[in-house]
This record gives sequence, structure tokens and C-alpha cells, in this order.
Amino acid sequence: MKTVGIATKPRRPEAAEVVRGLLAWLAERGCRALIDEETAALLGRGDGVPRDRLTEQAGLMVVLGGDGTLLSVARTAGPREVPVLGVNLGGLGFLAEIPLDELYPLLRAVLDGDARPTRRLMLTCGVERGGHRVAEYVCLNDAVINKGAMSRIIDLETSINGEYVTTYRADGLIVSTPTGSTAYCLAAGGPILYPTLAALVLTPICPHTLTNRPLVVPDDVTVEIVQGSASEEVSLTLDGQIGFQLQHRDAVVVRRATHMLPVITSLKRNYFEVLRTKLKWGER
Amino acid sequence: MKTVGIATKPRRPEAAEVVRGLLAWLAERGCRALIDEETAALLGRGDGVPRDRLTEQAGLMVVLGGDGTLLSVARTAGPREVPVLGVNLGGLGFLAEIPLDELYPLLRAVLDGDARPTRRLMLTCGVERGGHRVAEYVCLNDAVINKGAMSRIIDLETSINGEYVTTYRADGLIVSTPTGSTAYCLAAGGPILYPTLAALVLTPICPHTLTNRPLVVPDDVTVEIVQGSASEEVSLTLDGQIGFQLQHRDAVVVRRATHMLPVITSLKRNYFEVLRTKLKWGER
Amino acid sequence: MKTVGIATKPRRPEAAEVVRGLLAWLAERGCRALIDEETAALLGRGDGVPRDRLTEQAGLMVVLGGDGTLLSVARTAGPREVPVLGVNLGGLGFLAEIPLDELYPLLRAVLDGDARPTRRLMLTCGVERGGHRVAEYVCLNDAVINKGAMSRIIDLETSINGEYVTTYRADGLIVSTPTGSTAYCLAAGGPILYPTLAALVLTPICPHTLTNRPLVVPDDVTVEIVQGSASEEVSLTLDGQIGFQLQHRDAVVVRRATHMLPVITSLKRNYFEVLRTKLKWGER
Amino acid sequence: MKTVGIATKPRRPEAAEVVRGLLAWLAERGCRALIDEETAALLGRGDGVPRDRLTEQAGLMVVLGGDGTLLSVARTAGPREVPVLGVNLGGLGFLAEIPLDELYPLLRAVLDGDARPTRRLMLTCGVERGGHRVAEYVCLNDAVINKGAMSRIIDLETSINGEYVTTYRADGLIVSTPTGSTAYCLAAGGPILYPTLAALVLTPICPHTLTNRPLVVPDDVTVEIVQGSASEEVSLTLDGQIGFQLQHRDAVVVRRATHMLPVITSLKRNYFEVLRTKLKWGER
Repeated sequence: MKTVGIATKPRRPEAAEVVRGLLAWLAERGCRALIDEETAALLGRGDGVPRDRLTEQAGLMVVLGGDGTLLSVARTAGPREVPVLGVNLGGLGFLAEIPLDELYPLLRAVLDGDARPTRRLMLTCGVERGGHRVAEYVCLNDAVINKGAMSRIIDLETSINGEYVTTYRADGLIVSTPTGSTAYCLAAGGPILYPTLAALVLTPICPHTLTNRPLVVPDDVTVEIVQGSASEEVSLTLDGQIGFQLQHRDAVVVRRATHMLPVITSLKRNYFEVLRTKLKWGER
Repeated sequence: MKTVGIATKPRRPEAAEVVRGLLAWLAERGCRALIDEETAALLGRGDGVPRDRLTEQAGLMVVLGGDGTLLSVARTAGPREVPVLGVNLGGLGFLAEIPLDELYPLLRAVLDGDARPTRRLMLTCGVERGGHRVAEYVCLNDAVINKGAMSRIIDLETSINGEYVTTYRADGLIVSTPTGSTAYCLAAGGPILYPTLAALVLTPICPHTLTNRPLVVPDDVTVEIVQGSASEEVSLTLDGQIGFQLQHRDAVVVRRATHMLPVITSLKRNYFEVLRTKLKWGER
Repeated sequence: MKTVGIATKPRRPEAAEVVRGLLAWLAERGCRALIDEETAALLGRGDGVPRDRLTEQAGLMVVLGGDGTLLSVARTAGPREVPVLGVNLGGLGFLAEIPLDELYPLLRAVLDGDARPTRRLMLTCGVERGGHRVAEYVCLNDAVINKGAMSRIIDLETSINGEYVTTYRADGLIVSTPTGSTAYCLAAGGPILYPTLAALVLTPICPHTLTNRPLVVPDDVTVEIVQGSASEEVSLTLDGQIGFQLQHRDAVVVRRATHMLPVITSLKRNYFEVLRTKLKWGER
Repeated sequence: MKTVGIATKPRRPEAAEVVRGLLAWLAERGCRALIDEETAALLGRGDGVPRDRLTEQAGLMVVLGGDGTLLSVARTAGPREVPVLGVNLGGLGFLAEIPLDELYPLLRAVLDGDARPTRRLMLTCGVERGGHRVAEYVCLNDAVINKGAMSRIIDLETSINGEYVTTYRADGLIVSTPTGSTAYCLAAGGPILYPTLAALVLTPICPHTLTNRPLVVPDDVTVEIVQGSASEEVSLTLDGQIGFQLQHRDAVVVRRATHMLPVITSLKRNYFEVLRTKLKWGER
């Protein structure tokens, strides 16, 4: 863990000072630091490494930004099981939950082996077309199938472990990990899943059939969703960041990834405190 | 009301016999019948009139199909206040609620002046760009602003009668009439509005802010919604049928139309019976 | 309006100073002040008037407390259409929306005739048993029928203007005014109704039939709800404050009251601002 | 498994013939049959055994009735892990899912060892008062804490594994197993949990804080809920059948039971088919 990768949210000039402090702190402790291209741009340096290559060498990723930045790092850190530590530069994130004043004590604990990461479930998501796999993704939060802005309701023929579930007639369908349950899934009416729960949740978006409620299933299932609407524009989106245009009869196959993402969490704050703060549970 | 327009759902060969029967029935009673192009195609005739011109002459529109067909007729029948009578060819619709076996008794009542239509609120919806009105629509169900399939959450700055309400951060926003409340609005979590209620309902689609609940307002308000997301694809859709691509800072202005749509309803069945049947209230 | 009634939330010693200031202010302007028993207790005085008799003489009621205190005053002020002005002693209320620093400017405007009250719909709610009216209430927020803690699901046979709607199988049913829509109704999944909307909303509580969505109806209807569960404990509650034990086959009849409650609202703050603050719309 | 217990839903005379057929069928196959008191009453026999003692001897329980009857059997069959087979006498149940025409083929499979039961999670639920355990229950569906009909909102201070979650201000709180997720939990807005998922779900009933969404947690946690409302009537109910009056500061402690309930399910019908049928997913 002596090589630390640093990824920074783009266009956040106020992060420059934080990065400089972090680089100095790491150098002092004999750690090698690698920075991504966004961080390099921030510092006016030319030695940025593409974000998806950082984790080839880094034994720890420090992410300065919000949940979005962490999601993009997670998709490459996850397959190598490189721990990530998310520092929030603005408000508390569900993932980027470490405030600046906890960063160094926590980093010290990580280097000393005293901070145990929680391991987060990730998804693999493939697209099959005419018997061939035409796309393959990994994600931390969710795989979302949804209709275009001018499309009407779409049909999503869904099965789990080869057993037919239903054909959702909806704006879309979210397959979410516990980590993703507090993101888009929540806005669509889904439940909150404790981060270490071994489960996925399927949440339909604006289902035509009002009794189509979110469905929580064990994490070892295979979910298959066939795009059943011939004339509508339908997309697959991963973590709200990567998109793929689906064709009629394409099958999206979602499974839990074989790897998990180690996430360094606060030594002081447990998950429920993050929930209470983010969802304003202390107030009406 | 001696001229009756007939509009038929496309690609429904089983409707041909119904149309022939209807034409004979009308001829027998000295009524002139005009058919739309879809109906003409169905009968292999060449005298179809574009649907939006039928209501220039017809004093009554008979729509054979489902709610979708009726919506498309309503947008031209409404401004002329031509009564519409919706016959369902398949399952009961919220609007196309007349089964075939009620058609002729009801038509007779209409011709005899014994069937009082209920008058349904319609909306006008304009788009303002840089001080100019660049589009103008009429609709019966709803004006919907929503994001494209690969877009992320959008910002919709909303005010009512010039008073700022909130900036919805959501997949979209539905402004619905009572008639439209049982359509998309219901799928998005909205309430049911009694058809003759003098109100509109604003229902956000998957709002990020979980406390952004549907808002029911008097029908004499002006709703203004500014597309506040610079980098996302955002559309306006009317009745799920007509689309318009919105640009950043476009303002969508929704008001109740000055006209109302007269809808001929069943002599036997009241609104609650339609609700119970369509929403399966008799069963879990 | 030269006689002003003052009602105070019980057990709020910090209100004493406010009341003293208010009494002095009113005396200075030649207004007569009447205080309720809670206010008298607070000041150690013996001249408190029962709250429900204050409005026999007062031309304006000033309520110091929260929404609960204002609701209890409203039930007697309403039938006489005595305006109420609600001052919040703690957090902002939906009804008690005036902060202390706005009290005197607003009172001055009221005395000068410059503050136009908004008129709020109220409900009358009767209970019929075996052909006799056995109870009769007035309320501002809502009439709620619900099951006892150990009871199971109850059957509520509901009709509107004599037309059968459905038999709700639920924990209960809320009939709410626009004013009440942001109270219990919201917690049960109901929509927000703009305060001056001429409508009522029926919101079932935990309905067994998932498609039983809130229903918004014109305010001139008569809602009748028959308690259809022979063996369960069922109650009627008005504004969450007054209760009545219902028997099997009792009919609860709810109508809009003939009077309305004049509510003095802020000169500075509109309804949407109250919504945004109370429901935290500025934040996730 | 040569001794079979039979429990019948009370007051279902049409069950008598079914029971007689079942007794003959079992006798033919050399099985001993024990009947509960309700079944004995039905047949006019005097040898009924109290339901909770049947499972002392029976190696299989056949339940004729609905989900309610099965729940009452489950609470004694569960601790001894006696398999139950639920036959529906009326409509399909989530638990009583075997129609009469599948009964004998399925029974034969059970006796031949060819029917593998699914094992369902159960809960233990204790009440602690002043350091003492004053009540202890077992349930299959849910432990529900809720307010009395005339009570107002209650405070439920909730922690999981000793970590404070939140103080729900609500009508109540449901702690449900996957089996119970399609019962009361669903009516309160909860998700559906696949029956074999190793999880519990906490679903608040009409929470005052609208962001208090259902929370799904691993099944190995300890949930503690303290009744924090001094002046309100609050009850604990198990499976909607057994009630206990809670006092202020009572702590309800819910854990997964050490035993599981073996449930004999259809050879033909999978869980999703039951869901689709019960929740009418094939129709709007």
C-alpha cells in the first residue's frame, strides 16, 4: 500500500491546496503518489496518469470529490480490489464520506493497518444480442435500463435464474447494489439496503402496474432483462455515467461481480449517521 | 350534430366490421359520416379526411380504439368543443370507456339530446425561448418534461403565478389535468383527481428530494418551468404523443385552455366504476 | 376587531414575556384583550376564559404556539369566522407561520385593515347510527377513521354523493382539507393541496389494495364512510385531537362546512416558501 | 413423518369433506393423523388436540385455510422445525399456496422424500422492561409496534446491533421477515423480499419524516426499539394475531430465531408465479 493513487473531481480549483498537502504528507511517510489527469491539470503538472491505469500500481486510491468521482474510480479499482478512500470536498456523500479533518488520522490508520475497509458488492452487466455478448461492464451502484425522453412506456421482460418474473411496463428498471440503493433507486421509490447486505434490488421506474414493487433478491442470482419494445429508444446506463444504446430483443444480464470493492470508511461515523445526515432524519 | 366524424385506431382490422355497422346505423338516421384516414385505410376507401380536419365539420366525434386514439382526436376536437365518444375495442379505457354493446343506445341518446357530456379541462402549453414563443400546444392529459435516456438528473425551476415554487431535481415533471391524473401521473406516484375538479397536479418524476410530493393547484394558475440543465438532453411531451426538444433556459408555460372537451360518458357506468375496474379495486 | 383573544400553548413558560408584551401593545392601541385559561395560568392570573368562549367576543384570535394550538382554536373560531393569527414559538408551523419579529408589523396591518386573510376550508363531520346523528364535529385539518393498535385491517365502505367508490381494506382513511394535506395526509402518502383549492382529498392509510391511491374530489361533495368491520376497534379522530369510538355500521358523513376560517398570513412569506422550509426542499 | 397433523381454518364447513378425504388418504398410506380442535369441531369429533401441541408428535403439518391459519401453526411448528404444507380453501395465499388438485401429488412427493421444503426465516421478539424480559414471542411474518386508534404519532427509538439508527416519529414500525414482506409491510410501502433472502426489513408506518424509507438489513442483526412516547397507547403485535401492550420505555428486541420453518411449496409453481397472481402483475 506504499503507492497511493489520487483522483480529483474535475474543475474544483479549491482542491489544489488539498492535493498539495496530501502529496507532502505522503512523501513524508515514504509513500509514492500517482495522480490522475484531472489532478495533474489542477496542479499544472504534466505527469497525470489516466484514471483507469492508476489502479494498476496503486495499493490505495484517495478520491477527492463527491460520489460521482468515486464511482468512476470504483469501476477500475473494484476488479483489482484496490481500497478507495473518498474525501468529500463539498457536502457529505454516501461514498465520499470523509471530511478533510478526518483525512490524515484515517490515512495514518490505513497505513498502519488499523482501518478495516468494508467490502462492497459490485455488478457485472453484459449485453447479449443474437447470441453474442456485445458489451460488458462493471459498476458499483446500478445498472439502469430506461426509455428515451420522447419514448413511451417500454416492456422489459425480466427473469431471475431463468425463472420468469414479469414484464415490467415502465419508464425503466434499476438493478442496484446495496451501495446504489441510496442513489437513483431511492428516488424511484426503492428501499435502503444496508451496505454489507448480500442482496440486489430491482426497482421499476414509474411502473404502469402499480403493484410492481421493488424486489430484493439474494446477490447470487442472475438477472436477465430483455428489451421488448420494438419501436422505442431504450438505453442501458451504468452508475449514471456510461451509456449503451439497446436494440429490440437485446438481453441485459446482470450478476454480482466476483470481486468486491474495499471502501475505507470513517473511524468515527457509522452508516446510520451518514443516512441520518444525508436524508435529514433529524428533521421533518 | 348531424355530421359525425369517425376516427379509428390504426392497424385494428377487427374494427372494420364495427365501422361498417356504425356507418349503416348513421345513414339510416340521416346523419352524414366523415371518416379519418386510418378508418378509410381499414375499409379500403379513398375518402379519408386527415384527423385534425374532421372536427371542422363534425358535430360529434366517435373514436374507435383506446385512450391513445381519443387523446389524438381530443387535441383538435377540444378547441372547437366538439363532443367525443370513445368506444373501446379491447379493454376498458379511462377515456374510451364505452363498450360496443352500449354504443348504439348511447348514440341514440346523444342524437336525442339526452346524453349530457362531462366537460374536461384541457391545457395549453407554450415554449418561450429568448423572449419568443417558439412552440404552442394543446393537450388533454399532460405536459411532461423529462430527461433523455442517457441524461442524468435535470433541474426544473418551477413557479406558479410568478411565485417561485422550487427547483425540482428529478427525471422530469408532469403537469396533468384531472383527466390525465390516471395516466402517467399515477405511475409517477400522483393522486387521482376527480374528472370535473377544477385543478391541475404537478408530479415530479423520481425526484432527488424525497419530500417533493405531488402538488395540486387551482386550474386558473400559470405554471412556468425553466429547463435549468445546461448539458443534458431534455424534452417536452404532450399526451405522450407529441414531442419537442427543449434547450437550456427554455421556459415551458402551462395554463388551462379557454375551451373544454365535452366527453360523452356511459349512461350506466359512473367514474368510480371505471376506476374500480381499471385499478382492480375489487381485488388485492 | 377591537377585542383580541389570546390563546397560548400550554406549558410554555417562555411565552409569558411574549404575552405581556402583546398585552401592553394592544392596550396602547386601545384594544381589549381576552386571554384563555392556559394564558392566564402562564401569567398567574385568574381571568382566563375557556378557549371555546373567547371567540364569542373576540374579533381576532392571536395564537401563540404551534399548529396544534391553532387547530384547537380554529374549531371554535371557524364557525364564527373570526380571523386567527398563528405565532410560532418554536419552529415554523404550516399554520403557526408568523415569527415573533413579524408579529407587531402584521398586527398593525390587521388593525389597519391592510392584511387580507386567506379563507380556509373546514369540514363538518357527523356520525350516524341507526338513522340518528349521534355526534357532530367541525375540523380544520382532517377527519380520520382508523383501527385500534391491536385490530387488524378494517373495511370502510365509502361513497361520494351517494355513488359507491370502494370498500377500503386498510388501517384507516383520512378525509383532509387542503390545510390538512400537509399534516397526517402527507405521512400517509397523500399529495399537497394548495391552501385555497376547493377540494378534499381521501387518503387511505396502508391500504391492502395497493392501487387504492389518494383521491382528490371537489369540495362540494358529501363523503360517507360506513364502518364495515364487526369485530374490530375503530375510531374517528378530528384534527388528531378529538376522538369518537365508532360502532359497526356507523356512518361517518363528511361535508365541507358552510363557514371558512380566515387565517392571517405573513406579509412577507408565501405558501411555497413555507413548504420549502418545512419540507426542506432546498436540500436533499 | 408418519404422523401428520391437520389444522383447519375455523368456520369453514366446506372443509369437512376435504378433511375426510385427507384422513382416508393418509390412513391408506399407513400414516397416523392428528387433528386440531377446529378440525374436530368441523367433523363433530371429540379428539381434537390443541393446535400448539400437535407439533409435539406430528412430523408434518397440513394446514387447510389461508395465510392466517398457517401463521398460527407456524409459531409452534417453527421451533420444532416441523414442515408445513398450506392448502388454500379459497383464493391463493402467499403461504397457503397449494390448491386442492395439487394436494395429493404433493403429499405423495413429501412422503417419498421428493419434495424439498424451502426454509423460512422466523423472528424471536422479546420485551424488556426495567432490565427484565417480560414477554417473549416467535413469529413468521412480522413484529409490529403501533399506536392506538386515538393516539397521536409515537416515538420509536431504534438501534441495530447497538448502533443508533433513528427515532421514528410515525404511526408505528414493522420488522418483517422475507415471508412477511408481502403482508402488512407491503401495505406500508415496503419492498418485496425473496423468501430465502437472509434479511429483515424495517418499514415505518406513516412516518412523519418523509425520507424515512424502508431499511433492509442482514438477518443476523439485533434490532432494538424503545417505546419513547410517555402518554400514548402503544402495542406490539406478532403476525397480526398476538398482541402485547407496551409501556413507556419498554424495549422490543427482535432477532432472527435459531430455527427456521420448513415450508412445502408447489412442485409446479415458483415464487414469482405466486407474486404475479396475488399482485395481478399480468394486468394494470
